[in-house]
Order: sequence, then structure tokens, then C-alpha cells
Amino acid sequence: MDYDTIAAISTPIGEGAISMVRLSGPEAVFAADQLFRGGKSLKEVDSHTIHYGKIVDPDTGNTIEEVMVSVMRKPKTFTREDVVEINCHGGLTSVNRVLELVLDQHVRLAEPGEFTKRAFLNGRIDLSQAEAVMDLIRAKTDQAMNVAMGQMEGKLSTLIRSLRGQLLEILAAVEVNIDYPEYDDAEVMTNTILHEKGSEVRRQLDRILSTARQGKILREGLSTVIVGRPNVGKSSLLNQLVHESKAIVTNVPGTTRDVIEEYVNVRGVPLKLIDTAGIRDTDDIVEKIGVSRSKELLRSAELVLLLINGNEALTEEDRGLFQLIGKTPAIILVNKADLPQKASFDEIKQLAGGNPVLQTSMIDEKGLEELEKAIASLFFSHDVTTNGEAYVSNTRHIALLKQARSAINDALDAAEQGLPVDMTQIDIKRTWDVLGEIVGDTVSDSLINELFSKFCLGK
Amino acid sequence: MDYDTIAAISTPIGEGAISMVRLSGPEAVFAADQLFRGGKSLKEVDSHTIHYGKIVDPDTGNTIEEVMVSVMRKPKTFTREDVVEINCHGGLTSVNRVLELVLDQHVRLAEPGEFTKRAFLNGRIDLSQAEAVMDLIRAKTDQAMNVAMGQMEGKLSTLIRSLRGQLLEILAAVEVNIDYPEYDDAEVMTNTILHEKGSEVRRQLDRILSTARQGKILREGLSTVIVGRPNVGKSSLLNQLVHESKAIVTNVPGTTRDVIEEYVNVRGVPLKLIDTAGIRDTDDIVEKIGVSRSKELLRSAELVLLLINGNEALTEEDRGLFQLIGKTPAIILVNKADLPQKASFDEIKQLAGGNPVLQTSMIDEKGLEELEKAIASLFFSHDVTTNGEAYVSNTRHIALLKQARSAINDALDAAEQGLPVDMTQIDIKRTWDVLGEIVGDTVSDSLINELFSKFCLGK
Repeated sequence: MDYDTIAAISTPIGEGAISMVRLSGPEAVFAADQLFRGGKSLKEVDSHTIHYGKIVDPDTGNTIEEVMVSVMRKPKTFTREDVVEINCHGGLTSVNRVLELVLDQHVRLAEPGEFTKRAFLNGRIDLSQAEAVMDLIRAKTDQAMNVAMGQMEGKLSTLIRSLRGQLLEILAAVEVNIDYPEYDDAEVMTNTILHEKGSEVRRQLDRILSTARQGKILREGLSTVIVGRPNVGKSSLLNQLVHESKAIVTNVPGTTRDVIEEYVNVRGVPLKLIDTAGIRDTDDIVEKIGVSRSKELLRSAELVLLLINGNEALTEEDRGLFQLIGKTPAIILVNKADLPQKASFDEIKQLAGGNPVLQTSMIDEKGLEELEKAIASLFFSHDVTTNGEAYVSNTRHIALLKQARSAINDALDAAEQGLPVDMTQIDIKRTWDVLGEIVGDTVSDSLINELFSKFCLGK
Repeated sequence: MDYDTIAAISTPIGEGAISMVRLSGPEAVFAADQLFRGGKSLKEVDSHTIHYGKIVDPDTGNTIEEVMVSVMRKPKTFTREDVVEINCHGGLTSVNRVLELVLDQHVRLAEPGEFTKRAFLNGRIDLSQAEAVMDLIRAKTDQAMNVAMGQMEGKLSTLIRSLRGQLLEILAAVEVNIDYPEYDDAEVMTNTILHEKGSEVRRQLDRILSTARQGKILREGLSTVIVGRPNVGKSSLLNQLVHESKAIVTNVPGTTRDVIEEYVNVRGVPLKLIDTAGIRDTDDIVEKIGVSRSKELLRSAELVLLLINGNEALTEEDRGLFQLIGKTPAIILVNKADLPQKASFDEIKQLAGGNPVLQTSMIDEKGLEELEKAIASLFFSHDVTTNGEAYVSNTRHIALLKQARSAINDALDAAEQGLPVDMTQIDIKRTWDVLGEIVGDTVSDSLINELFSKFCLGK
């Protein structure tokens, strides 16, 4: 199908060495050629070639930019349409001017995500792969990047397609039963196939869903809050974690600045440390933000690291912090193990409930390895390798997979209870539909529009 | 000459659709090929072609990114070296990871401006053209962009090279006089040539320098401050100016946030309106920033727009503002012309000194055209066309042109006073040298390093 021709600035907005205006659509080459003065007409050049020249204002003949233009003809392009990329010197004024001129050539400004949307609509990638593109852009850690990359390469899609294939086979068997009920063994056959293949689908759905919690953590990072009384060693712990970690992203343009986040990598588990600036500035997050905000923060966190001063007897404040944690997973660090221990370890153990209690010393760097092990084993049952395995990490996908599991369960239950095959058929069909929403085969236009509207401009 | 191979992220830093890692140098293709998995080895592909594939970590075999790689072989490249551009999905994490992998392949991280420096060192562009690249990136208005583009296209270089050619002819004539003093007419000849050609060079230098003031304004914008008592109509004036103007850049990432600047285009004159946020927030810049800061601001400004409330008698505060302006060019706007006029026009005229006084009404939009005319005629003796003409806009170039003019003056004076030709020769040579610094023919390594260090990374 042929759409209109769209264009947008596809590089991040700001001063840089290179900025790019990207065009896609049937008129992309023609429109760019109207503005381009180089050795050859872009209409005559080979696909996937690069050309030096100038962009001129066709009304005045004035040179606007010195550019490198890439011409890529369909179908082997990002959108499966003709694509032209105009690389400008990175000025904001000039790249805007080039875009303006392009938009004068019967080219429309692209909506956010519209290039990727076309890649989807033109069948180059499925919906889960398109979503992975945005995940990749937003990835703050190597692990999130790997999970997104796996999804973009189609690891999740392959699993989903295989499941849908198996469901089609079941549906075919059910159809036979409905169409030829006169065959004596049709019902037996159908039930056998249903049970065998349906259970297999359920088993595979369970396996995929078992990666969901980890996938979500890998994608988004584990929101982690460090708490403790003043001077108990919170900022030292923070520095140790940050120092040991390789992949750190702080104050990335585009991330929110309300709550400062820092990402650290603990044995493959990405921790998103919340309000680290608060810790650094005041060394007392609870005091700073007030008890009610703290409660909220601690309860919405996915992991709390609570520091206790082992060199002092427990105070009411310490006990209050244990209360504040609530049911959030926590690791208790009895710090200052290098000094004489005066806090009651028994009471701490008791207050900790089932949460792990470790002795640490930020000065001797004692207990940090145990901390890392504790974090890893709290959230990952096995070694974290984000390569090879397909993780389901996207909330939308997880919800759909759960719906699919529930639908296949209904189908299996119906079959076991000997209900009419029509009933079973409906449930199987529902499973198949719901899984189709993940890859975008059975999905409404409005959902598609909503998903792509969250993309950035030019993607 | 062969340098080592360098790489950097060449797109602005931030979330965007596309980010690019650029490599330049003899090993650029080899290094990229070590990481690239696509249809072909990059070592075998034609120059100026684009290839779809993946970047893998060669140690683990894991896919890091899905990329489009452009291969451009010397000499027809930006740096005149082999250049490879790796276009990634725009994530910060993944583009950093790709850069990291590239830097593992015996490739060095590029210094700021090093790609452009190589373009200069390898003779593709001269120094004034290299400087124009950065001007183009930093350009905040269309006019600044046009001036930079003209310089980048070599308009200034062509003038300078022509002048240096003429100086070489004079030097040749002087040499004849020195080498063959026995010819009777040698000295006469030399003096004739010196006078004729030297005066011509001086005339051309004058002409170029006559564009300097305007060039600098076009490049940097005219720092303009709007002042006046509270409620005199400052923010209305600001809005009128901003509204009428097409090219506005506010809060561009990378521009300083201390003093908010807004660019408006008044009949081709780019005004850089200073501290517009202050005007919008408090409607009283002087009160807000204190009198001493205001004095400084007004005196460092290149244009002051002083608003007086025509509907009220002049106050001491008004008179104080006239004092504050000092010698800075100003335009006095007697505002609220739609209401009965109570301010003494005579006194205003007197306080204004020679500065233009206009009656305006922001409500009736009266006097705005006169204001625009006044601004244009204050700074430009003729229509502002930034196309076609070569403007000298860079402070370094202006200083060198002034030195050159002084040197050629010395030469002409010496000749007129009948001093020995050796003296004249020295001055001519000095003129030639100084002009060579503009295009970078006669310039020290340390100056080159300093100039390029102001470039952005990846350029």
C-alpha cells in the first residue's frame, strides 16, 4: 500500500556535529531531488548510495546547507518505502530550515513514531518488534538494551508465532469435529489433541510468563531506595554501588529531573536508585522529604536497603524505619562492622521478618559481596543472562500473555468437563486472538495509534 | 599524511530516533567490519554505499544494535580519509556501547572538532571554512546561518586568496628592485606598482572591513535590552516583536540558561533580546536585577529600547533610565499613544540626546513599523541581504584584517617617504602573512589546536 510522503528530524534535538532530516514515502526521492544540487540527480542514483551536495532554496537559489544525502529505495529500507536521509551539519537553525524546505515539497511532517509505524504497517516488523525499538532507545542499562534487542530481533515474536501455529492446529482439529461429527472417533481425537497440544501451549505460556518479573526488572530497573538514620553510611553505600558498577546513567537529557535516578548494575540486576541526590545532599532522605512521602516512596519501591548503625544501640527511629518498609522486599545492613557492635542483632533479626540481614563495613568494604549476592538471589532464581533468552518485559505483553493463559485454561477445563466443542473452539480462538495482539496481527487501529504516539519524533 | 583512526558520537546527545558513531582514518573500514555482521564484508563494498546489518560484540557474539553502516572511502569524504558512519537506533545506552566496541578496535576517541581539523589538515577546507562549520552549527538565526554558509562555501577565502595573490605580485616587483638595482628604472617601476597595486589591496581591505560590523551583528545578533518603568508596556512590546518575527530560538539545549535570550528578526536585523524571562516574569528588569547589574547590562548592550509612559508625566525613575543608558545606541518609545499624552515630548527629546524618539501604542500597534525602520537604519546602511555578499563576521578575522590594513598602510607610507625597498618588502610580507592566518596558511599549531578545541565533540 502506498502512503503519503513524510519527513522529520530524526536525530536528537540540540547542537551536535550531524543532524538528519529523514523522508519516507513514494515521493521521498523526488522531493529531496528538488532541493539537492550535486553531481547527479537523486532520481538517477543507485539505491543505498550516498551523495555529496548542497540543499538550495528552490525559490531563491540560495545555498542552505552542505549535505550528504543517502538514497534508499524500497523495499530494503526501514519503512519498506523509499527513504532519503539528508545529513546536515548539526545546527538547529539549518536543519530546521532544511526540514521546512522539504515540507514545501508536498511532504507532510511525520507524526511521532510514524516511520516505525510504517515499518509495521508495511509488514517489515511486527508490533512487539516495533515496541522494542522504543525500548531500545529508552534503555538506561546494558541489560535493558539486551532485552530490547532480543525482542527487536524477533525472539518473542518467534515464540508467539509458534504458539499461534499450534493453536491453529488445535482449531483445525476442532473444526473437523464440528464439520464431520458423524465420524465416531472425531470427538475422541479432538479431545486427545486438545489435551495434548493445549497443555503444551499452556506449559509454554507458563515458561514465557516466568520470565516476566525478571524481564520487567531488566527493562525498567529495580526501583531501590536506601534508607537509614543520618550518618549511618548511606552515601558511602551509594558510592560503593555506583563505583563498582560499570553502566551508570545520570541526568540523561530527557529523563525526569524531579526525582534523581541513578542506575547501577549489581550482578546483572539493574538497580534504579531513587532520589540519590537527596541522599548525597542531606544524607537523610526521610527527614528531607517528610514521613508521609517516605512511606509512599518505600512502599512503591521494589527493594529497600535499610542501614542500621551496628555501633549504636537500636533507636526508636530505627524501629520506625522497619515499620515504614511494610511488605516491600528489603535487605537489612548492620553497618559499621569495623567498630564494636552494640546494636542487638537478635532484635534486628526479629524486626527484619524474613528479610536478609547482613553485617557490613563501608570502610573495610566488608559484606558488599554478600549484599550483591543477596540482591541477585532475591530477584533472580538463576544467573542473569540477557543474551539468548527471550524475556517478556513489556506490561502490555505480560497482560496479554496472562489473558492467553486464562483462555487456554478455560478451553482445557471445558474439554475436561465434556462441554460441547463449540465452547472449546471459542476459547482456543480467544487464545489465538489475544496472542495476535502482541505481534499486532489482531489489534485495533486505535491501539496501534496509541502505541506509536508514545514514540519520539522522527522515529 | 596518514593519521590514526578516530571515532566519536556525531549526533547530539539525547534520546532521538537515530544516533551516529562516526569513524575516520586508515583503519576505519577495518575496525567497523570487525563488529559488523551483514550481507557483505565492509572491506569489499563500494565507496559511498549503505549497508544494513548488526553490530555484534566480537567477544561474546551478542547482537548490540541493528544498524545502517555507510562506507565512504578517501579522498571524497568530509575528512579526506576513509569514513564510516554507523547509524544506530537513537538510544544513549546502545550508541555508547557501539562506540565502546569501536574504541576496542585500536581506534581512538576523537577530540572535539578533530574530524573538521583533519578536513583542514588534509587540505579539503581552509581555516576560515572550518570556522564557518562551527558558526553554522551555532547559528541561531537564518541570517547567521547564511553568513556562515557563505563563509563555508569559500566566499571569504576567495577574497583573501585574491588579495594574497596581488601581494605576491607586489613582492615579486620589489624583489626585482632588490636583485637588479642596476636597472635605472627598477625603483620607479617598483614604486608605481607598489602604489597602484598596494592602494588597490588597501581599498579591498577597507571594503571587506566595512562589512565587519554588520557581519558580526548578523553572526551573533544584536544584544538588545528593553527597559522602562513597570506597566509601561515592555512585555507587550516583547510579544509584538516575537510575534512578528519568524525565526525564533528560545531555550535551545546548549544555550546558557543564566540569562534567557530570544532571537527576533527585524527587517533582517537579528535582535538577541536579553533577559526576556525577567521582563515576562516581573515586568521590571531594573528592579529585579538591581541598579548596578542593570547599568552593566545596559552598557554592554548594543541596543536599548527605552519605553516611556506618554500618558503620565515623566518621573525621576524615567530620567534615571536615560542616565543608565549612557552611550549605548537607544531608541526611545513614548508609549500609550492611544491615551492622552501628558509626558513632555520636549524634555524626552532633550534627554534622548541624538537617539530617535518614536510615539507608539502597543494596543493600536502604532509606531511598530517606524521602530523596525529605526532599528534597521541604525545598524545597516543598506538593505540586509545575507546572500551573495561575503561578510566578515568572526572577531579573529576582523582583527587580522585590521592588522593587514595597518601593514599595507605602513608599506605605502614607507614607499611614499622614499624609504629603502627592504623596509617596504617587510611590510608587504607582513600583510601577506597576516591574511594567511585567516585561511590558515600561516598559522601556528597552537592556534589551530585552540580553534578546534572550541568545536563540539564528533564534529
